[in-house]
Amino acid sequence: MSAGRYSDKYLFDFAKRVMLSLGVSEPDSDRFADVLITADLRGIASHGIGRLSRYVDGIRSGKIDPRAHPSVLVSTPTVSVISGGNGLGQVAANFAMEQAIEKARVSGVGLSFVRDSNHFGIAGYYAMKPLSEGMIGICMTNARPLVVHTFSRRAVLGTNPISVAVPTGWRYPFVLDMATSVITSGRVEVYERLSRVMPVGWCVDADGRPAVDPAFVLDSIRSRRQGGLLPLGGDKEELGGHKGYGLAMLVDILSGVLSGAAFGLDVGSPDSSHHNVGHFLAALDIRMIMPVDEFKSRMRRLIDMLKNSPRQVGAGRIYIHGEKEFEEAEKRAIEGILLPEKVVKTLVSIGESVGVPFEVS
Amino acid sequence: MSAGRYSDKYLFDFAKRVMLSLGVSEPDSDRFADVLITADLRGIASHGIGRLSRYVDGIRSGKIDPRAHPSVLVSTPTVSVISGGNGLGQVAANFAMEQAIEKARVSGVGLSFVRDSNHFGIAGYYAMKPLSEGMIGICMTNARPLVVHTFSRRAVLGTNPISVAVPTGWRYPFVLDMATSVITSGRVEVYERLSRVMPVGWCVDADGRPAVDPAFVLDSIRSRRQGGLLPLGGDKEELGGHKGYGLAMLVDILSGVLSGAAFGLDVGSPDSSHHNVGHFLAALDIRMIMPVDEFKSRMRRLIDMLKNSPRQVGAGRIYIHGEKEFEEAEKRAIEGILLPEKVVKTLVSIGESVGVPFEVS
Repeated sequence: MSAGRYSDKYLFDFAKRVMLSLGVSEPDSDRFADVLITADLRGIASHGIGRLSRYVDGIRSGKIDPRAHPSVLVSTPTVSVISGGNGLGQVAANFAMEQAIEKARVSGVGLSFVRDSNHFGIAGYYAMKPLSEGMIGICMTNARPLVVHTFSRRAVLGTNPISVAVPTGWRYPFVLDMATSVITSGRVEVYERLSRVMPVGWCVDADGRPAVDPAFVLDSIRSRRQGGLLPLGGDKEELGGHKGYGLAMLVDILSGVLSGAAFGLDVGSPDSSHHNVGHFLAALDIRMIMPVDEFKSRMRRLIDMLKNSPRQVGAGRIYIHGEKEFEEAEKRAIEGILLPEKVVKTLVSIGESVGVPFEVS
Repeated sequence: MSAGRYSDKYLFDFAKRVMLSLGVSEPDSDRFADVLITADLRGIASHGIGRLSRYVDGIRSGKIDPRAHPSVLVSTPTVSVISGGNGLGQVAANFAMEQAIEKARVSGVGLSFVRDSNHFGIAGYYAMKPLSEGMIGICMTNARPLVVHTFSRRAVLGTNPISVAVPTGWRYPFVLDMATSVITSGRVEVYERLSRVMPVGWCVDADGRPAVDPAFVLDSIRSRRQGGLLPLGGDKEELGGHKGYGLAMLVDILSGVLSGAAFGLDVGSPDSSHHNVGHFLAALDIRMIMPVDEFKSRMRRLIDMLKNSPRQVGAGRIYIHGEKEFEEAEKRAIEGILLPEKVVKTLVSIGESVGVPFEVS
C-alpha cells in the first residue's frame, strides 16, 4: 500500500458512505463529506479526509451523536442561539449559517451562536456560504486548549480560527481563514509525518523555550503537559504576541462564553462526556448599504492596489486571501487529490471496519 | 520650559478651549477633549494631547470642518450609514456608536458604517461606550497607508485597528484595542523622541530589510517612499505575516470599502481635499442571548482560567486586555499626566496662536 491520487468525487462518496454506515442521515452525510473534501481540494490536508478517523472515533465513543438534529433555543429577527445536540459540527454550523442568512435577508444582519457542537472542519466553508447571496460571511469556533497565552506556561485557549468571506469583482472572493495562532496543530502533524524540524517561533516547551521537534509538541498536547503553540505575534509582547492572544480570547468569547458552550480549559475536555464546542456565525447583507455591484467594483479596486504594488525582490506574486486555495482547488479537481500512505492505510482500515471498501488506486 | 505633570482636568479644559476657539461647538469640543485625554490617562501617549497639533492643523488647512454635523444617509432597524461631513472623527464615531447602541436596544445588534470622517483617536474609546448598557462594543477604522503587506515593497493599508470591549464580572472589562500591524506609527515616534534603535521585526525599508532607525522610517512614511511598518506576524508567511495583512484588509473592507469612504492608497491622500477616513462600529446586546449577570460570571471564569495559569519564569503577571490601561488610568488620575518637553512646547505654541494660554507647571 502506498500514497495514491484520488478524485474528489471518489473521496466524497467514500466519506459519505462511511457516515451513512454509522447512522448519519443522507443529507447530513452529504454535508459532512462536502466540508471534508472541500478542505482537501483547497489544499488544507490537515482538515480533509485524513481527519475522518477522528469523527469516526467520536461517533463510536459516544462523544458525537450521529443522529442529532440542531435545535433553535432562541430566535429573534437578528439572532439565533442553536444547540448542536452533540452532533457533527459540520451539521450544526451549516444549519446555523443557513439561519444567519435567512435573518440577514430580512434584517440585513443575522448572527448565530452555537453550543453543544463538535469540531466542524474548515471555518472558511461556512463563511463562504453567504457569498452567493451577495452577503459577507463570518465564522469562528473555539477549540481544545493548544495555545500558550502571553507569559503563561500552559495552554488555555485553542487555535480559535477567524474566517471572513467577502464578494469581489475579481476572479475570486476574499476568503480570510486563519487560526489566531502562528500555525495550526495540523501543521505540526504534517512536520511529524515528514520527520522535519519546525522553525523557531511556532511552538514552545513548558519553560517557554522554542520547541522544534513536532513529535515532542504533539505528545505535550495529547498528554496536556505544559507548553504548546504560540499565538500570532509570538511569545512576549515585543512583536505583538498579546494581540494573537487577544484575538484567540475574542473568538472564545463569541463562540464559547456568549453561546453557552464550553470555553477555555473546558473545551473538549477528556473528562467530560461531550466536547461542547461553540461556534459563532454571521451574515451581512451588502445591499443594506450599497448595491452589490458597486461594492464588488470597489473591492476590485482595493485588490488591484494590493496586487499591483511593487514587489519584494524574489517574490513571485502578491496574494489575496483565498487565492492560493481557489487555484489549488481548480488544479486538484482535474488532477485529483494525492493522499499520503499513512492516510490511505487509515481509510482502508476504516472502510474494513464499517463494510465500505476503500479502493487503493 | 521642560517636561511637566498635569492633571487630566487641566488638559481636558485646555483641549476643549482650543477646539472652541477654532469654531467647534461646546458638546463636540467636550467629546473631542474626552477622547484625547482618555488616551493620555490610559497611557496611550501617541493618541493623546501630544497629537492636538494635528487636529488644529487639519482644521486650519480646511481638511477638517470644525462645524460639521454627522448625517444619517441610510437607516434600517439594524444598520446606519453615516457621513461625518469631513468633521472631527471623534464626533462622527461617537454619534455612530450612539446610533448602533440605539439600534441594538431594539434589534439586538446595531451596525454603523461611517464615511467622510477623519482620525478619531483611540478605537477603544468607542468600543467601551456600549459596556454600561450590558452590550459588547466593536470599533474599527482605516487609516493612511503605512503597512507593507506580504511580499510588497510599498504600504497600501494602514495600521487599521480592531477594538472589542466586553463586560466581565472581573475588576475590568475585556478591552482589546490593537493595531493590526506589529506596532503603531506612534511607537516609532516615541523611539525617535528617545533617539533609540527599534527592534528588528517592526519595520522594513524599500528592499524588505529590517529598518531600525525611527527617523528613517518616519521620513519614509512622510515622503510616501517605499517600506514601512510590518503587519502582525511580520514579513513573509512563516510566522503568519499574511494573517496580519488579512486582518488589516478586513478592517479596510468594513471601514472603507463597505462604508463608502476612501480605502487603501486613497485614505488621507495628500492630493485630495479631504481625508475621507472610514469607520465601522457595532453594538451587540448580550440580553438577546443570556442574562448579563450569567454572561459576566462566565467571563469571570474564563479570565480566572487565563490569569491563574502557571506563569513563565520571570513573568510577573498574566494580563487581560485593557488591564494595564485601566491601572494606568487610576494612577494618572491621582498622580497626573507627565508630558515630555516637546509636547509642552507644542501646547504652549498652540495656546499662543489661539489665545488660550497653556500654563507650564
